[in-house]
Amino acid sequence: MAEFDLIGKLRSAIGPPGHGTLVGPGDDTAVYEPSGQLELLTCDVFVEGIHFRRDFATFEEIGAKCMVANISDVAAMGGFPSRAVLSVCVPPDMTDGDVESVYAGVLDVCAQYGVEVVGGDTVGSPAGLVVSIALTGAAARNHVVTRAGAVVGDAVVVTGSLGGSEAGLRALTEALPDEGGVLEAKRRHLLPAPRVAEAQALFEVATPHAMIDVSDGLSSDVWHIAEESGVGVVLEAESIPVAACAIEVAERLGVDPLELALASGEEFELLVALPEGEVARAAEHVKAVTGTALTRIGEVRESEEGCTLVRAGGSELPLARAGYEHLK
Amino acid sequence: MAEFDLIGKLRSAIGPPGHGTLVGPGDDTAVYEPSGQLELLTCDVFVEGIHFRRDFATFEEIGAKCMVANISDVAAMGGFPSRAVLSVCVPPDMTDGDVESVYAGVLDVCAQYGVEVVGGDTVGSPAGLVVSIALTGAAARNHVVTRAGAVVGDAVVVTGSLGGSEAGLRALTEALPDEGGVLEAKRRHLLPAPRVAEAQALFEVATPHAMIDVSDGLSSDVWHIAEESGVGVVLEAESIPVAACAIEVAERLGVDPLELALASGEEFELLVALPEGEVARAAEHVKAVTGTALTRIGEVRESEEGCTLVRAGGSELPLARAGYEHLK
Repeated sequence: MAEFDLIGKLRSAIGPPGHGTLVGPGDDTAVYEPSGQLELLTCDVFVEGIHFRRDFATFEEIGAKCMVANISDVAAMGGFPSRAVLSVCVPPDMTDGDVESVYAGVLDVCAQYGVEVVGGDTVGSPAGLVVSIALTGAAARNHVVTRAGAVVGDAVVVTGSLGGSEAGLRALTEALPDEGGVLEAKRRHLLPAPRVAEAQALFEVATPHAMIDVSDGLSSDVWHIAEESGVGVVLEAESIPVAACAIEVAERLGVDPLELALASGEEFELLVALPEGEVARAAEHVKAVTGTALTRIGEVRESEEGCTLVRAGGSELPLARAGYEHLK
Repeated sequence: MAEFDLIGKLRSAIGPPGHGTLVGPGDDTAVYEPSGQLELLTCDVFVEGIHFRRDFATFEEIGAKCMVANISDVAAMGGFPSRAVLSVCVPPDMTDGDVESVYAGVLDVCAQYGVEVVGGDTVGSPAGLVVSIALTGAAARNHVVTRAGAVVGDAVVVTGSLGGSEAGLRALTEALPDEGGVLEAKRRHLLPAPRVAEAQALFEVATPHAMIDVSDGLSSDVWHIAEESGVGVVLEAESIPVAACAIEVAERLGVDPLELALASGEEFELLVALPEGEVARAAEHVKAVTGTALTRIGEVRESEEGCTLVRAGGSELPLARAGYEHLK
């Protein structure tokens, strides 16, 4: 009976079906009207001990971040998120209330970004907590941007600032006290934001050629664009917007802030290749509409040149797929 | 690099995007044309030690069964499966080849039922293997059948035969030798089939009011229809089509075959409430088109009467939500 009580509570938390949804949670599948636009589909799974630690993150934060990771993928494709299905594998040491907290975190993010949870599966797990979400989205035909469209001469820009997530993880791991930028770094690690509005603002004044969200780390994600587009990319070290909180944590830990920024995954900032001539207007417009900075950090080159980082003095280092290690 | 090699192999196994798919695996999200019909979405997650054991099932069977569970949900809603995203959480003791085997099992089922894998996430797992699949589908507006439409006086029918999956699990647990029906029972447990064609054949000659796939066990799933429809159901013990292999395994283990049939989950047979007058023609047509039997096993009554089982002598027992235990 306990299982049915919990499922009833989770269904109540989700609420009634939204616009266009004919059947929500509780039947064999969800049923909904097609958007009329192109359909998007993505998934992300977060595993305890790999993607999160319960001593660092609350259950709400764990659920929220998995949902953010999915929404970020839809944003980076140029779309709006629509409907999600959510699987939670619950270890024996979690209470029903803990599972409700995971849901609360997911649903809080859903409410912010207009996502409806239309189904799910709550099952046992012998050991760790696993949260698996699949998310649909919709995108206008002329707004879909893959990783594959960058052309030589494009500028490379990034939203927001980088390094905060990795700095926050290290601050948590090293148990740094919550002073100054440390708390902000932890917050960025635990509760990042997807850039749905920023991507849409970009379309209003620019024609992005390739776009990806920074989920593996800037260095890795630059490579993803380069490989899918068949180009090379040069990043200018001095232009990369390193988060103030990352600089502060890096100083405390005695590491290079730029290394943090290159390696930091789960930033969920947008990395975009677009025509050089559109950069200034795009940066101005995105800032005006969303409050988020858009910074030019490099340019697209021939594929033979690979992906590199130019330091202040002019020295050029290869960027490896695994952002941090190659710089050690 | 190893991770990229594996992802490359998995992408190759998936193959090029299918009809209507603009972007397949490897970008932030999949992108595809809307079907024009109603969209369906479901998910299922299979966890090692809860849903499967590696000493019972091969990696191919584990992947295949998780895909079957999803397709079965789409079938039970009245739809055709379309596109899937697949998350695999891989413990340290699995090789790249083992992950490829999970994919091979998934893709084999996909090929049989016209499903395209359009994305996925392959991540580490500290302990057990977890396979999480989300599946979209499409259904004609007049073919969607929820669990909620059964009305008093409807007949209740089921496809195929029941008990094989639970019998197979017990045969595996008790290490029964592969003689007679034991092998068939194990096969039914490890490689069940979804009833997509059977559901569609039903629509050609009947107007099903409520439909569900038998995934929790007949007893539980009868309750799901009853509760969602606000009705009661009486099942006739003598009419329930118990699989020959389940009878054989039950005899070997000294248990009641009917108890196996009521408790057996993951059967993926369709349980349907439809007008009494349509049963004969539906059974004839489904058999002719698909080769699968359709058997009348009971009828829908007023909700006050609950869900019950009538034995041969006329005694009536309550069916509990947890199929097996209530009969102990």
